[in-house]
Amino acid sequence: MTALAQEPVTRLASRSSVMRFLNEVADDYPNAISFASGRPADAFFDLRSWLATVPEFEARFGSRRLGQYGNTAGIINDLVAEQLGNDEQVLCTPDRVLITAGCQEAIALCLQALCRNAGDVLAVRNPTYIGATGIADLAGIGIVAIDHDESAASLQAAALRMRAQGKRIRAFYVIPQFDNPTGTVMPLAERQKLLDVCAAERIVILEDNPYGLFGFEGPGQPPLAALDEQGCVIYLATYSKTFCPAVRVGCAVVPETLFGDRDAARALYEELVGRKSFFAVNTSQLNQALVGGVLREERGTLARLIEAPRAFYRRNRDALLEQLQLRFGALGAIWNRPAGGFFLTLELPYAFEANDVVRCAADSGVIVMPMSFFALDDSQRHRVRLAFSNLTPEEIARGIEALAQYQP
Amino acid sequence: MTALAQEPVTRLASRSSVMRFLNEVADDYPNAISFASGRPADAFFDLRSWLATVPEFEARFGSRRLGQYGNTAGIINDLVAEQLGNDEQVLCTPDRVLITAGCQEAIALCLQALCRNAGDVLAVRNPTYIGATGIADLAGIGIVAIDHDESAASLQAAALRMRAQGKRIRAFYVIPQFDNPTGTVMPLAERQKLLDVCAAERIVILEDNPYGLFGFEGPGQPPLAALDEQGCVIYLATYSKTFCPAVRVGCAVVPETLFGDRDAARALYEELVGRKSFFAVNTSQLNQALVGGVLREERGTLARLIEAPRAFYRRNRDALLEQLQLRFGALGAIWNRPAGGFFLTLELPYAFEANDVVRCAADSGVIVMPMSFFALDDSQRHRVRLAFSNLTPEEIARGIEALAQYQP
Repeated sequence: MTALAQEPVTRLASRSSVMRFLNEVADDYPNAISFASGRPADAFFDLRSWLATVPEFEARFGSRRLGQYGNTAGIINDLVAEQLGNDEQVLCTPDRVLITAGCQEAIALCLQALCRNAGDVLAVRNPTYIGATGIADLAGIGIVAIDHDESAASLQAAALRMRAQGKRIRAFYVIPQFDNPTGTVMPLAERQKLLDVCAAERIVILEDNPYGLFGFEGPGQPPLAALDEQGCVIYLATYSKTFCPAVRVGCAVVPETLFGDRDAARALYEELVGRKSFFAVNTSQLNQALVGGVLREERGTLARLIEAPRAFYRRNRDALLEQLQLRFGALGAIWNRPAGGFFLTLELPYAFEANDVVRCAADSGVIVMPMSFFALDDSQRHRVRLAFSNLTPEEIARGIEALAQYQP
Repeated sequence: MTALAQEPVTRLASRSSVMRFLNEVADDYPNAISFASGRPADAFFDLRSWLATVPEFEARFGSRRLGQYGNTAGIINDLVAEQLGNDEQVLCTPDRVLITAGCQEAIALCLQALCRNAGDVLAVRNPTYIGATGIADLAGIGIVAIDHDESAASLQAAALRMRAQGKRIRAFYVIPQFDNPTGTVMPLAERQKLLDVCAAERIVILEDNPYGLFGFEGPGQPPLAALDEQGCVIYLATYSKTFCPAVRVGCAVVPETLFGDRDAARALYEELVGRKSFFAVNTSQLNQALVGGVLREERGTLARLIEAPRAFYRRNRDALLEQLQLRFGALGAIWNRPAGGFFLTLELPYAFEANDVVRCAADSGVIVMPMSFFALDDSQRHRVRLAFSNLTPEEIARGIEALAQYQP
């Protein structure tokens, strides 16, 4: 899909401002229609009902104990392990689960634990979620760009190339299912190849799966973690999309063995817990009680809760495809058909870059994200990411009409 | 008070296990009386009443917006600025406040933003809170130990010494009021000297004040941030002690100027916000709503809420002093008389170290913390930290009696 950056790219100075921009731009243009941020549909947030489950959890756990400092690794690990097994095909024991203050903390902890020596490099597909590349920048970890379509072969080649430079790829961050930012799915055969490459090269896969439960076309691919027989996948999950971002609860699941070594996996888990104690100390037990309370009430599955939002996202995806056909079909633009998730890639006949975002928001009343914001090179200049997750079909129609009229 | 480590000490391997031990040891010996962890008195946790303020906050802020991703710097900055002004003599505008996932995140962000070049060193008093030294270890930041009693002179000397080695002290982490772990207060004259040294040496003071509201003997000393006229203090606050640890809300307040430079202070603030976006993204808006809801209900002051716990802590301090006199008065032990806070230093006639903790817990049913856990050298081997914040006077009596009978 993309031209490759051949060497590690580090310290794109703008990443932290992009990260904030993503979360804040909609507030700056409150009347614009925003395809910018991958926000879950807030119409389904049910904070009051969710909060109502806290007292039952509190009563079981102990009211005084709930308010206190507590276990660094978390207090709902058993409930989370059960849910991951039921809903995401990820079978694990609670002692391999580390509860984190949102998935971002899990990414930060894993990256810093895995890439601790000079020359340790992070591999990512290009473009990718900037929460991963951003933390690598902050920690001074080099980044190497991997091809989207042929990730396994590209990663293998990059591993060789890095070795020749005296460097080593220690981790590969990837969103195989309904990728952010592209909206694509990694095919099953590619997943198998990727696992083989990573096992051979001893590269730990950081599999981020925030959108996996929002598939529109039947059961999706199994996560890499479910296919992993060699102990190379740390699975990252979040409740920001299934509940809401304000709960700030996510997790990392360490494999049973690390490349066959059970002690090494245990040591990695303990290392992550130790590091966590110096960042968020422990994840808010109040927020854990909310997630745990609902998981208990729902008997360990989110199936019922996500039904309505999933249908909503599918309807939005369909509306977006229809509007793109209507407004961009004759303009030489191309786009993909996401099988799930929040995002679609639109390739425009002209470049759409940082300065276009603000002008398009101000002039045309629509906010879209240049794909170049997520890229490691300049291969993405004509592409934009359209997040369709928190709009109505009517807003999508107006927004795409406005975007089609934008004069670059 | 302490012998000084003359050179930076780095990577005490055990710090992360100490951090976890502090939070978890009481669970391992549920029947032991624990003076170990500086936990607020959980009898005063009122989660249900606090949660009841969320809907009002939610209604004003917007229910859907509250659940979403939001402003990286926080959404209750105005309410926090008002409370800091009312209760802690720290006058600031909301745009200088960064809301964090507990104060620990604020410490981590500040340290990493300030000490980013090779040779940048963190100064701390010896012993000190291991959340500060632990994050320095993880980030590879050198640590230099400063004297407790003559901090200003000691810091001045250390600055010279570091300069001679081609290093530079960039930050000084300190808890001037009711210190953790020692329970001491920095005198006003020493505070003034410290501010002068730091202004001259351009050392940023990270003033942590978790216990400042729990003074037992009238109005305490003004915080360094309230005395700071030269722009050298970042003030760190937390709601873990005034509300409860489970809310995981704290903040950093950046000075109006950084050593007289307004733009530099603004740039530092933006740097902290940018870094935060890659750790906790934003602090849980649900938790912010709880703190904000109560602050609004209490009209911007915690005075009413902390009255009962403060009286409780004072009563416990008095009970502890009485029991120490009774059980240790004749044994050659010495101790201080904390004017507030959660901690007291007891110096025993024998060494009390890591292996004593478990044996004392198992044999005598009492858990205390060796001061050496918080130290940068071996000057603290005979001292223990007694946290008296989450016990009853009866437990204190039984615990001190048991400790006096412990055979090292």
